[in-house]
Amino acid sequence: MPPRPSGRAADALRPVSIETGFARHAEGSALIRMGGTEVLCAASVEPRVPPFLRGQGKGWVTAEYGMLPRATHSRGPREAAKGRQSGRTQEIQRLIGRSLRAVTDLGALGEISITVDCDVLNADGGTRCASITGAWVALRLTLEKLARNRVLSRVPLTAQVAAVSCGLTAAGPVLDLDYDEDSAAAADANFVLTETGGIVEIQGTAEHSPFSQAQFETMLRLAQAGTAHLFAAQRAAVDAALAARSDAS
Amino acid sequence: MPPRPSGRAADALRPVSIETGFARHAEGSALIRMGGTEVLCAASVEPRVPPFLRGQGKGWVTAEYGMLPRATHSRGPREAAKGRQSGRTQEIQRLIGRSLRAVTDLGALGEISITVDCDVLNADGGTRCASITGAWVALRLTLEKLARNRVLSRVPLTAQVAAVSCGLTAAGPVLDLDYDEDSAAAADANFVLTETGGIVEIQGTAEHSPFSQAQFETMLRLAQAGTAHLFAAQRAAVDAALAARSDAS
Amino acid sequence: MPPRPSGRAADALRPVSIETGFARHAEGSALIRMGGTEVLCAASVEPRVPPFLRGQGKGWVTAEYGMLPRATHSRGPREAAKGRQSGRTQEIQRLIGRSLRAVTDLGALGEISITVDCDVLNADGGTRCASITGAWVALRLTLEKLARNRVLSRVPLTAQVAAVSCGLTAAGPVLDLDYDEDSAAAADANFVLTETGGIVEIQGTAEHSPFSQAQFETMLRLAQAGTAHLFAAQRAAVDAALAARSDAS
Amino acid sequence: MPPRPSGRAADALRPVSIETGFARHAEGSALIRMGGTEVLCAASVEPRVPPFLRGQGKGWVTAEYGMLPRATHSRGPREAAKGRQSGRTQEIQRLIGRSLRAVTDLGALGEISITVDCDVLNADGGTRCASITGAWVALRLTLEKLARNRVLSRVPLTAQVAAVSCGLTAAGPVLDLDYDEDSAAAADANFVLTETGGIVEIQGTAEHSPFSQAQFETMLRLAQAGTAHLFAAQRAAVDAALAARSDAS
Amino acid sequence: MPPRPSGRAADALRPVSIETGFARHAEGSALIRMGGTEVLCAASVEPRVPPFLRGQGKGWVTAEYGMLPRATHSRGPREAAKGRQSGRTQEIQRLIGRSLRAVTDLGALGEISITVDCDVLNADGGTRCASITGAWVALRLTLEKLARNRVLSRVPLTAQVAAVSCGLTAAGPVLDLDYDEDSAAAADANFVLTETGGIVEIQGTAEHSPFSQAQFETMLRLAQAGTAHLFAAQRAAVDAALAARSDAS
Amino acid sequence: MPPRPSGRAADALRPVSIETGFARHAEGSALIRMGGTEVLCAASVEPRVPPFLRGQGKGWVTAEYGMLPRATHSRGPREAAKGRQSGRTQEIQRLIGRSLRAVTDLGALGEISITVDCDVLNADGGTRCASITGAWVALRLTLEKLARNRVLSRVPLTAQVAAVSCGLTAAGPVLDLDYDEDSAAAADANFVLTETGGIVEIQGTAEHSPFSQAQFETMLRLAQAGTAHLFAAQRAAVDAALAARSDAS
Repeated sequence: MPPRPSGRAADALRPVSIETGFARHAEGSALIRMGGTEVLCAASVEPRVPPFLRGQGKGWVTAEYGMLPRATHSRGPREAAKGRQSGRTQEIQRLIGRSLRAVTDLGALGEISITVDCDVLNADGGTRCASITGAWVALRLTLEKLARNRVLSRVPLTAQVAAVSCGLTAAGPVLDLDYDEDSAAAADANFVLTETGGIVEIQGTAEHSPFSQAQFETMLRLAQAGTAHLFAAQRAAVDAALAARSDAS
Repeated sequence: MPPRPSGRAADALRPVSIETGFARHAEGSALIRMGGTEVLCAASVEPRVPPFLRGQGKGWVTAEYGMLPRATHSRGPREAAKGRQSGRTQEIQRLIGRSLRAVTDLGALGEISITVDCDVLNADGGTRCASITGAWVALRLTLEKLARNRVLSRVPLTAQVAAVSCGLTAAGPVLDLDYDEDSAAAADANFVLTETGGIVEIQGTAEHSPFSQAQFETMLRLAQAGTAHLFAAQRAAVDAALAARSDAS
Repeated sequence: MPPRPSGRAADALRPVSIETGFARHAEGSALIRMGGTEVLCAASVEPRVPPFLRGQGKGWVTAEYGMLPRATHSRGPREAAKGRQSGRTQEIQRLIGRSLRAVTDLGALGEISITVDCDVLNADGGTRCASITGAWVALRLTLEKLARNRVLSRVPLTAQVAAVSCGLTAAGPVLDLDYDEDSAAAADANFVLTETGGIVEIQGTAEHSPFSQAQFETMLRLAQAGTAHLFAAQRAAVDAALAARSDAS
Repeated sequence: MPPRPSGRAADALRPVSIETGFARHAEGSALIRMGGTEVLCAASVEPRVPPFLRGQGKGWVTAEYGMLPRATHSRGPREAAKGRQSGRTQEIQRLIGRSLRAVTDLGALGEISITVDCDVLNADGGTRCASITGAWVALRLTLEKLARNRVLSRVPLTAQVAAVSCGLTAAGPVLDLDYDEDSAAAADANFVLTETGGIVEIQGTAEHSPFSQAQFETMLRLAQAGTAHLFAAQRAAVDAALAARSDAS
Repeated sequence: MPPRPSGRAADALRPVSIETGFARHAEGSALIRMGGTEVLCAASVEPRVPPFLRGQGKGWVTAEYGMLPRATHSRGPREAAKGRQSGRTQEIQRLIGRSLRAVTDLGALGEISITVDCDVLNADGGTRCASITGAWVALRLTLEKLARNRVLSRVPLTAQVAAVSCGLTAAGPVLDLDYDEDSAAAADANFVLTETGGIVEIQGTAEHSPFSQAQFETMLRLAQAGTAHLFAAQRAAVDAALAARSDAS
Repeated sequence: MPPRPSGRAADALRPVSIETGFARHAEGSALIRMGGTEVLCAASVEPRVPPFLRGQGKGWVTAEYGMLPRATHSRGPREAAKGRQSGRTQEIQRLIGRSLRAVTDLGALGEISITVDCDVLNADGGTRCASITGAWVALRLTLEKLARNRVLSRVPLTAQVAAVSCGLTAAGPVLDLDYDEDSAAAADANFVLTETGGIVEIQGTAEHSPFSQAQFETMLRLAQAGTAHLFAAQRAAVDAALAARSDAS
């Protein structure tokens, strides 16, 4: 089998960094970079919930996703100018929101909403996975702030959540596809996992031909190993941000 | 564990029927019923392809999805009147289209497009899965017609494709959720499979708490067994329709 | 004069059937077939009225109309995907709503709204007329149900309403145009009548050249005779549905 | 029976005036006043036809309708700001277009399109009828100009067309309803007629209770007498405009 | 330097007229003509304010702008049919609204809103400036009416406001550009001024090459002189309208 | 007079930095920071021009503007989700585009289009001015690249263009308003100037009361001095980027 275009090992993530505080007005924010993919995740708190939840004493966590027109190789039309969000955009933002809610104790939030905006500044594959991983950091920092300000009595998160893609490529099953690999893969899957090994979301798609259960399980193992690094990066970013905050107080 | 609300066994499908020819003008159509869910799938042929494919000698297969406003327990707003398709609608129609393309030899189609409209007349859970299973029948009949009319030299399908949902419920892991089960499941997954055992799409979602790899594999086994019945129902419907046509000729 | 393309007599309706209960969740529904035209009419009750009626103690009856993309000879664009309802769609749904309101005692309804969705599954001319005739059945069954459940003290309908088209064709003035006749008619008119002989709506249009008062009166006479059959079909469908319900109780 | 609110006789039109040339850039224009209703009709020529007519050597005549936000008693929302034309607007502009096409020899036009914009500056009932009557004058002047410029060899009109409303009111059947009468009428009908007595369009609506054939025929007779005055006003306006033009040459 | 296309002196306005009362239902209206440009300004009062002002005891003045499709040399698309207002339209209506609010004591209005609709019937350059000048008259008459009806204790205007364009053309710096001059000007500026010499808005744009401070000041002087005539025309129109009203009482 | 909230001198800009190359795929990009305002400007080249320019051998430069939802103190709705760009957004992007075109020799571009996307990542007042200043750098780098690649024979820019706001505040006339100053200013003006002292655009607005010509001229002088620093920052950023490129070659 040929090597990966990037020369990475099959089970190697791209370099990951998470910078907090980039969005100065947001209650919590994370600028996550995975190789050439860069997503700004910014969380906002509002003291109300959507109509279908009113009066139940529960909170809500949701997400919106966007891509700057020239985040990609060739410029795409601005969705605000087109007057509608694409099906792809809506699908991704629904996925991010579900992933965050799966690890949040909504009952402990009270009637507040948190929206995490995930905007792709530079794209090189894996933007939905990077969004989820970064959004969790923005959400965690926001909840820490609400707890510090005594809006919440504790941080109502039940787990860490992070996401990574895997694919079946000419180089075999590999972890964390970049754009070139993604375009050429026979199949790919996005795995949204918790640090305790739980599965939150799986989206597997055969682009060219169906894949087997064994291939699927190989991809899942790669994802489990890969997300271990992402969970560590999340913790490091959160710890550094909290330390800086406590220094400042 | 309590029994399923419907009294079905954990691995039992709801009654399935596939009636062809309901849409009189369509090149191929199938009205599929899975219990209380009823979807009309109608295929249309156009002698052109979308702009991004022009001049490549390849064809295209796509799908659109809709739900009559009162297909559900309480009336939903008409998407045409609201002026936009919901994120859910777009996500589903993208899934149906990808599933059909995964088993179609687009290069052998030539520059024609086939659109399969999947409209839900009555909904009781599992509408996206029923749409895929029915759409394949409509597509197959359409391709048979094109082959009979010598537009195509053969039927360019590489496999059958069908879909079913599974879920983790109070009654344990079960096959083919109806609406009540779907609303209460801790997790559910939609499996789009081929009759040769291949995986075309997997969408697994933890609604309340993450699930394990073992639970996922149990659901996959249920789906593999369940779709065997769907493949048989597809073949029976196609055979009957082709027999009726050849009687007529 | 040549015969009609279908061989029907000038004053002959196409075969009519009305099947109730097709839409399982609706408070009342009717699947009406007039020859190759097939419309599903489903009524929904909501315990509120539009803003302009609030606080007056009166109810509201309205209708929405749609056509499945492949109900017609060649596939039309899905209005939900286009993002707007066509002028034709809006004109038709306004007509259906007015026709139903003309025979409903809105003051006796109280502050509830009934929306009748008319969705064309197969089209062969006359879809707006079939919608009105079927919608009345769906409305009647809904009001019967509300009366049986003591939401209403009586069924607040003042008459039956049904509709049929007439046209001036090569075969002379004829009743109940199918698609081929409609496309070629010099003029056509839709008549919405009550079983007591009253006129609720008339829409007459000269497609190619103006028509005379005498021609118009001939068409009206055809419509009066034709709707007599439709009124009988409505009564038969309602009686059968009510009998089945009382058997079930 | 009480008199009409305006004191007019049952068969009396409101004062009518037609001023040509108000829209300075238009190929033909007419500002029509019927009592307190005032509509500016402006025709525009384009050297192309809609896609469905291309290559057939035939022309097209269409209309658009609008109402200034404060043409009415209380301000209505601006349709451009709402982002969609109402169903009423679309219904009216379709009616105007059909009425004009019914008296135009489209085959003699060649592949040009004429759009007549009908914008209501002040509204007091009967705006759709005034639009049709004024639009015909704008169309006629436009065709005269095209003939004078040798774009056309003759004026391809087969008749005059004008429109008027009638209604069943507390004062009995009356001609040319103003806003107050229109709001309170039990039924009303719009008649689009030719000067040769032909019927181009009829739209009759029972607002509160069905009406009889005899009532309908009374309204038709009122309309036939009333439009005779409108045809005379159209001819006078056209003659004056043509005379002024030939003076100028 | 060549003369202006119209033969006007550099500092000459086009003929100006302001006719009040054209929009019969409006609380105040002005039909302003500046040469071939003609704008109908109609003010409407509503007893409520936008959400962001509620409960503050202050009023609001805003404007909307539109152009009839055939107000211009060639027909433009109807914004209501396109489904959105252009950026140009929105920019102009925001400018008109700001200009009116700058001379209105909103605190003295109380919680009422006044919307001034400015609709261009004929366009020959300078439509936004004519709109502002006419809108002030419509607003003044509306406020006079509210004061006369004791809704307001006084007319809460702090100044007159009027607007005019200037440009750098082949004929040098000139006042009040018509369409031909506007299309060819190297730069142009719109000045919104008060009769006391204050500047409310300035919008200066270099179309082809930057201009100098000295050129800008020349244009400002032309505008100051030009608006003196517009203020006189506003006063004359208001005085005549108020005199007619008091005669009528 | 009180000092400015930020303690800055009346004629002091906020700290300015311009980082090139942030948008990795863009032909030219600049991330400009002016105090707490941060805008990413990314230029894209397309080998075609808008319809109104086709066949004239000239190019086009345009801009689009957006703001991330949480660039501001409280989260604003995402324009893509709302389905339309606000009037403010359209006004700003039209201004940026005009400013760039005023210093570009479009005839020397040939039939190519350059779109500069200006997306606000963090907002603290002056985003439209920062966009213009940054967009010029992105445009310059893009044109340099096209010249280096021999698509263009020279860089077709006639001047530098930069922009800054001034306002009349409690601290007197001041340069470069931040958000707090902007909200409270009696008047403000945006000046788009060239390094040779020319005026490209002026937008002056009295928020609360009209201002005088003298006040306006004071603001213009502040802007002329302030933009001198911006022109220097632009040149430094461009020189550094070009040096890095030539090192790389």
